Amino acid sequence: MNIIVPAKLNEAKDKMILLDQTLLPIETKYVEIVKVEDTWEAIKKLRVRGAPAIGVAAGFGVYLGVKDSMAKTYDEFYKEFKEAKDYLASSRPTAVNLFWALDRMERRLIEEKDKSILEIKECLLEESEEILKEDQEMCKKISEYGLSLLKPEMGLLTHCNAGGIATSGYGTALGPMYLGQEKGYNFKVFSDETRPLNQGSRLTAWELNEAGIDVTVICDNMASIVMKQGKINAVLVGCDRVAANGDTANKIGTSGVAILAKEYGIPFYVLGPTSTIDMDTPTGDDINIELRESKEIYNGFGKVTAPPQVKFYNPAFDVTDNKYITAIITEKGIVEPPFEENLKKLF
Amino acid sequence: MNIIVPAKLNEAKDKMILLDQTLLPIETKYVEIVKVEDTWEAIKKLRVRGAPAIGVAAGFGVYLGVKDSMAKTYDEFYKEFKEAKDYLASSRPTAVNLFWALDRMERRLIEEKDKSILEIKECLLEESEEILKEDQEMCKKISEYGLSLLKPEMGLLTHCNAGGIATSGYGTALGPMYLGQEKGYNFKVFSDETRPLNQGSRLTAWELNEAGIDVTVICDNMASIVMKQGKINAVLVGCDRVAANGDTANKIGTSGVAILAKEYGIPFYVLGPTSTIDMDTPTGDDINIELRESKEIYNGFGKVTAPPQVKFYNPAFDVTDNKYITAIITEKGIVEPPFEENLKKLF
Repeated sequence: MNIIVPAKLNEAKDKMILLDQTLLPIETKYVEIVKVEDTWEAIKKLRVRGAPAIGVAAGFGVYLGVKDSMAKTYDEFYKEFKEAKDYLASSRPTAVNLFWALDRMERRLIEEKDKSILEIKECLLEESEEILKEDQEMCKKISEYGLSLLKPEMGLLTHCNAGGIATSGYGTALGPMYLGQEKGYNFKVFSDETRPLNQGSRLTAWELNEAGIDVTVICDNMASIVMKQGKINAVLVGCDRVAANGDTANKIGTSGVAILAKEYGIPFYVLGPTSTIDMDTPTGDDINIELRESKEIYNGFGKVTAPPQVKFYNPAFDVTDNKYITAIITEKGIVEPPFEENLKKLF
Repeated sequence: MNIIVPAKLNEAKDKMILLDQTLLPIETKYVEIVKVEDTWEAIKKLRVRGAPAIGVAAGFGVYLGVKDSMAKTYDEFYKEFKEAKDYLASSRPTAVNLFWALDRMERRLIEEKDKSILEIKECLLEESEEILKEDQEMCKKISEYGLSLLKPEMGLLTHCNAGGIATSGYGTALGPMYLGQEKGYNFKVFSDETRPLNQGSRLTAWELNEAGIDVTVICDNMASIVMKQGKINAVLVGCDRVAANGDTANKIGTSGVAILAKEYGIPFYVLGPTSTIDMDTPTGDDINIELRESKEIYNGFGKVTAPPQVKFYNPAFDVTDNKYITAIITEKGIVEPPFEENLKKLF
């Protein structure tokens, strides 16, 4: 099975090899990233996307930003690191995993302050590689917990892309599909197109098909009919941020799919690492929703599909209320309602 | 206010002037139709679309098909008419209004069988113009009944295009918006993009904006968030076919919007002429769903947005169960549940 790693270092450890996801599904192109500015651009322009993959890229990116530092003292080096870190943090302000990875890199730096600059650089390299490795292990665990809830031959619906290329291998929402494929589960997967950026049709369909999984693309507004027809036995989605009460911010449209699933009596699972659970955010109402450009709606794919002079509303995310979520599946286990109580036990 | 008539005869009554809706919103182009083959093509290719407008175009189309007939006898003329009629009927097999209009033209022909061929042709012209005129009056009545359920300053959501250009003027679902605009209601309209053919962004947004109505385009998967934010006070949609129990076939995605509206406690109104109510169809389960080409999904915008080698599922319609419908608004009045009982009273 072809599992794609969206961001990793080259063998010489002086470049990041990054799958340019904006070119999919037509072109499979890897770009080489050597500078922190290129990392910023890659995150901003969604060349790398998906919470865990952004964390991995940010770790490598901030390392690349300081690895050639000429700083002589710890204070000088720390100042350069902070500049790179703060700059990268500005690329995607709603991606909690971005901050998580950058903070982790900073903590490691501070821990190693008594070492030489050269040794500190080596520790930062090690830390960034550790983020990738841990993410791979995490995805594997999420996949195993997720698969334990599913049966062979099931029809599964997913929205957006919480797949291998959103993480570092198996993915979160798509992880159980890959693991099931290895075990001969023969899932039938339906992938929402996921307007306006079409991650579901461009990315999810592409990577599942690469792995030989049976995948059918539908437009977002077809989720209701396929559920009604009995084609869907479970919905699996990723998450960008989970509040302490289980309310989940994820790609725009997720909340609608969750409401449909509830109406049709289909379990709705959120899959993600515990690093996306933000216990400092009490509820979904406290999550800031990023608004994106109108042009993504009316001119995203070549042709103008709406009169540009009208208004557009283009939120990147929505919040799925905890009452629509059957379970949140993390690397530490399956969390069921009441989430306010049960999510605490993870930490 | 600029109300657009999508299909009408020219002054000399020898051509149909048809707005080519496939070119909107970029180009406003009218095509001249003189032959029945061109009418067939225009209906098939969605140059004219929307149940009532298809009926109007079919009436004119079948008239144009026989107006230059050299037939000497009624039987000969009737045979030519039937050929034109059967041919046009094959252009869009799920459009009940197409059959309704063609059957009506045939009935008129039979009624006038004792007249001369020249006189019969005049009667057919009259009948086709009557279909247009009646549709305009019908839309006006639907608009008035619809508006009676709304209040100034309301936020309204619509899906697909059941507007002026889907009918012969005011439209059905958009009718109350136009009438409200004339009366200073200042509605804020949200228009679902309506994938895969984007009638909501291409057509609805275009025609509402032409009339000076405040319109915001959203992707289909954003209906949930705008409802949650309290921006929507009512949903207004058209219908392609209403079963005897009120189950409603309409553009794909309508059923999902209806379920969301129910969940958020927002009234969901179906607007359409009684000619779209099919009392011979007991329930929505008896409605055949047209499946359309995969290419509409993966290559509708100019660029390829999904790997063409995967599967696609592209139903043109879905059925909204009667339990999600607050009222069905027709030219004969507002019908509330229980629909099975109350729809009968219309006939």
